[in-house]
Amino acid sequence: MDKLKEYYQKMAKYSDALLLLYWDMQTYMPPAAGEYRAEVISEIGGFVFRMSISDELGELLKNAEPVSEEDEANVRVGQKEYDKYKKVPSDLFEEEMRVSTICEQLWQKARKERDFEIVQPYFERVVELNKEMAKYLGYEKDPYDALLDRFEPGMKAEELDRIFTPLKEFTIKVLEEIESVGKVDDPFEREIHVESQEKFNRWLLTYLKYDSTKCRLDVSTHPFTNPIGMNDVRITTRYVPDDPKNSIFSTIHEFGHAQYALSIPEEFYGLPIGSSASYGFDESQSRFWENVLGRSLPFWKGIYKKFVETFPDMAKYPVEELWKGVNIVRRSYIRTEADEVTYALHIILRYELEHALINDELSVKDIPDAWDELFEKLFGLKITNISLGCLQDPHWYGGSFGYFPTYLLGNLYAAQIFDAMKKDVDFDTLVENGEFEKVRGWLTDKIYSKGRMYEPKELLKRVTNNDFDSKYFINYISEKYTNMYPIQL
Amino acid sequence: MDKLKEYYQKMAKYSDALLLLYWDMQTYMPPAAGEYRAEVISEIGGFVFRMSISDELGELLKNAEPVSEEDEANVRVGQKEYDKYKKVPSDLFEEEMRVSTICEQLWQKARKERDFEIVQPYFERVVELNKEMAKYLGYEKDPYDALLDRFEPGMKAEELDRIFTPLKEFTIKVLEEIESVGKVDDPFEREIHVESQEKFNRWLLTYLKYDSTKCRLDVSTHPFTNPIGMNDVRITTRYVPDDPKNSIFSTIHEFGHAQYALSIPEEFYGLPIGSSASYGFDESQSRFWENVLGRSLPFWKGIYKKFVETFPDMAKYPVEELWKGVNIVRRSYIRTEADEVTYALHIILRYELEHALINDELSVKDIPDAWDELFEKLFGLKITNISLGCLQDPHWYGGSFGYFPTYLLGNLYAAQIFDAMKKDVDFDTLVENGEFEKVRGWLTDKIYSKGRMYEPKELLKRVTNNDFDSKYFINYISEKYTNMYPIQL
Repeated sequence: MDKLKEYYQKMAKYSDALLLLYWDMQTYMPPAAGEYRAEVISEIGGFVFRMSISDELGELLKNAEPVSEEDEANVRVGQKEYDKYKKVPSDLFEEEMRVSTICEQLWQKARKERDFEIVQPYFERVVELNKEMAKYLGYEKDPYDALLDRFEPGMKAEELDRIFTPLKEFTIKVLEEIESVGKVDDPFEREIHVESQEKFNRWLLTYLKYDSTKCRLDVSTHPFTNPIGMNDVRITTRYVPDDPKNSIFSTIHEFGHAQYALSIPEEFYGLPIGSSASYGFDESQSRFWENVLGRSLPFWKGIYKKFVETFPDMAKYPVEELWKGVNIVRRSYIRTEADEVTYALHIILRYELEHALINDELSVKDIPDAWDELFEKLFGLKITNISLGCLQDPHWYGGSFGYFPTYLLGNLYAAQIFDAMKKDVDFDTLVENGEFEKVRGWLTDKIYSKGRMYEPKELLKRVTNNDFDSKYFINYISEKYTNMYPIQL
Repeated sequence: MDKLKEYYQKMAKYSDALLLLYWDMQTYMPPAAGEYRAEVISEIGGFVFRMSISDELGELLKNAEPVSEEDEANVRVGQKEYDKYKKVPSDLFEEEMRVSTICEQLWQKARKERDFEIVQPYFERVVELNKEMAKYLGYEKDPYDALLDRFEPGMKAEELDRIFTPLKEFTIKVLEEIESVGKVDDPFEREIHVESQEKFNRWLLTYLKYDSTKCRLDVSTHPFTNPIGMNDVRITTRYVPDDPKNSIFSTIHEFGHAQYALSIPEEFYGLPIGSSASYGFDESQSRFWENVLGRSLPFWKGIYKKFVETFPDMAKYPVEELWKGVNIVRRSYIRTEADEVTYALHIILRYELEHALINDELSVKDIPDAWDELFEKLFGLKITNISLGCLQDPHWYGGSFGYFPTYLLGNLYAAQIFDAMKKDVDFDTLVENGEFEKVRGWLTDKIYSKGRMYEPKELLKRVTNNDFDSKYFINYISEKYTNMYPIQL
């Protein structure tokens, strides 16, 4: 068992180097260094992959004798990962990595030039390779399940269909109800100096009690969180002069991811259970901090004084106006800028298309039209610019199929977790007073301290004493928006 | 040959990851992450070391069939490195790495608490391990030569003695002559806001035509240069409010290192010849840009307008006063803050002591007294604080014996190179006009483009058409300071 752990801890050191190479690429790397950096990442990435499927690791897993519950989980989770990737031929894996890296670069060009054909040939290859991977990874009924399982262990397309279908109808209903109230003014539609935004975001992290000895905030085009090593998590945000909400909620979102990573027990570090339970669970925490907490009225009451002090132009709005302003629900083209209600539609759109793609019900060349058609059906808007359509996100072009649903699952988990938390914790009072320790303490105790010991659904059951159910999200949205607007849901 | 090159290029990717881990540690890493970072560095460092002495590399070197002059140099340099480190038992190498890492950490504590005994036991072990390494590395007469050769290939203690002895006398004479003129006022002895210093340093890099697509400037406690990858060199500086010269000359110094690294041909990257010729040669370039160019009157004439614009308090000094101010010669305790004249004495002191140490003529416990005694002899100053004495530099405690002389060799090479350059290039006019392209072009053509194809002395001969000789430095100093002061040398 000790030898197995040592093996994993050693492997972690190389993945940590990879994460730093990646973080640096997004933040400080001089621009001309990109091409070579990709080679370094690919070399070390290949090394880590080979370590993760080596015969040596297979032997260590076979002979490990776990004595604690944690170590049993390490062997179980480790064995599952090992078996999964061991089944994929190395050259298929490496080919997929290579092709999708090129494809993602071409996607940037395609998006810029609004020309799907630039990326189409490589993208077709990426889809083919992923279908092939699905065969090796294995599945019962639906090849999509094999890919989804990499991001959300135990989740299946069948279950997503069952959850997403009613959610789609509910979301459209909420949207229409809110629209019936009439246009809401947005106090945040104004130019705000990046310097004041920066100042406020730094203050915000202190207010949220972030640990600056283990965490740092930088700037990147697309905000992200990278746990680079033990006691070392990097988050980024972005400052848009005429969109001050952007940086505030990016910062809180990534702070949520960072909280999770920094609260996993140190002794799990580098081991199979030493990460978050799944992509969906990780997202549930960024969403919890960003939306459930960060877009709540108590939170805005708590930061109001500091907020109007930093942005004196905003002092003319009472706190309720600001709270409404950060919760405006509207039809929009871009997923990453969507509100917490319509976000679901953005994901369902992507899920339906990628599911069809992997099941040969849709071909790559038909994606732009299929997207525009489904988008119009869901949002009632026409797409006239493909960079606001199927070229807006990198995920598919980088070979991540089965990733998008985890964003929505994150929202659903967050609402279910919130429901359970409120039974133990006086959320509104604590949040209004800026006393986040008890909130974080509850989350650490129930979720963060468990690392990846349990599969998402089992963990959710342990945390909430209930099976996974989208009704908690539906209730959360209903309660919040009927409080905000004179509507019935 | 191709396989050999591939092997080296692969190895370089892991060393590049190491360099990034190191750079990040000195610049942006959250403080609590230090302990784990050391483990990551040690793991990947060990991996690179094992690659550098593997049997596979031995075979590749043996079977390589070089057809070009460059490839012959690759095999020659590669084979020399390989043979050298292959002779050292891995466990000795790793033990030395481990012990000196701890010792360097203890040194920080010892320096802070001004207590040599804190570091003494580990330091004794470091010295013992280095003596043992010297035996394995091999030497003719003097074990010190084996250690020196790691930093300055082909250099020997005998030659250092021959050069340094007259240089010591010359330096003391210059110092006394200059002192006889009387105290010189230092216009730079003033508080200057870090913000204006930063602004000026950024401008300075642009003025020197640094390539911001391949290079970046950050801040660290001890300024350094790290070539992190192809087209990616990081330099750092430090801002001291009451010492504006500190940042200016740190920046130019590190810029010099960066110029060298960025001008080595791209096709050499990762190969044995893909670095600077030696530590001394690398230092010759940082010193050339910092001292020969950066502390010259033409340079200060060129930047004067911008300088007084940024620091209006300084406008009352004519340019000659500023030039004198950046060239003040005085007795001082700290090597890194020494002027270009007395710097030689700081190095000679260290060289004499480390040479005695490796030759069993001095024991570790006697170092503090021996340092103070020799320092008083050379500088005429008493040391009352050990952190200004033998605890000021990390090199010895980190296991680098034979490193210090390369700093002084750098100064000597720089003067000899300057002498040769002036025959081809109208240095004063170009520098005064800020036209650095021809200066850099000459250096690239003669030095940077050769990478590590030649050993330092051979390269110096090719560059200057003369054998290495310290007379060029003596002439350079004599000319400069007799122009500055009414003295005879």
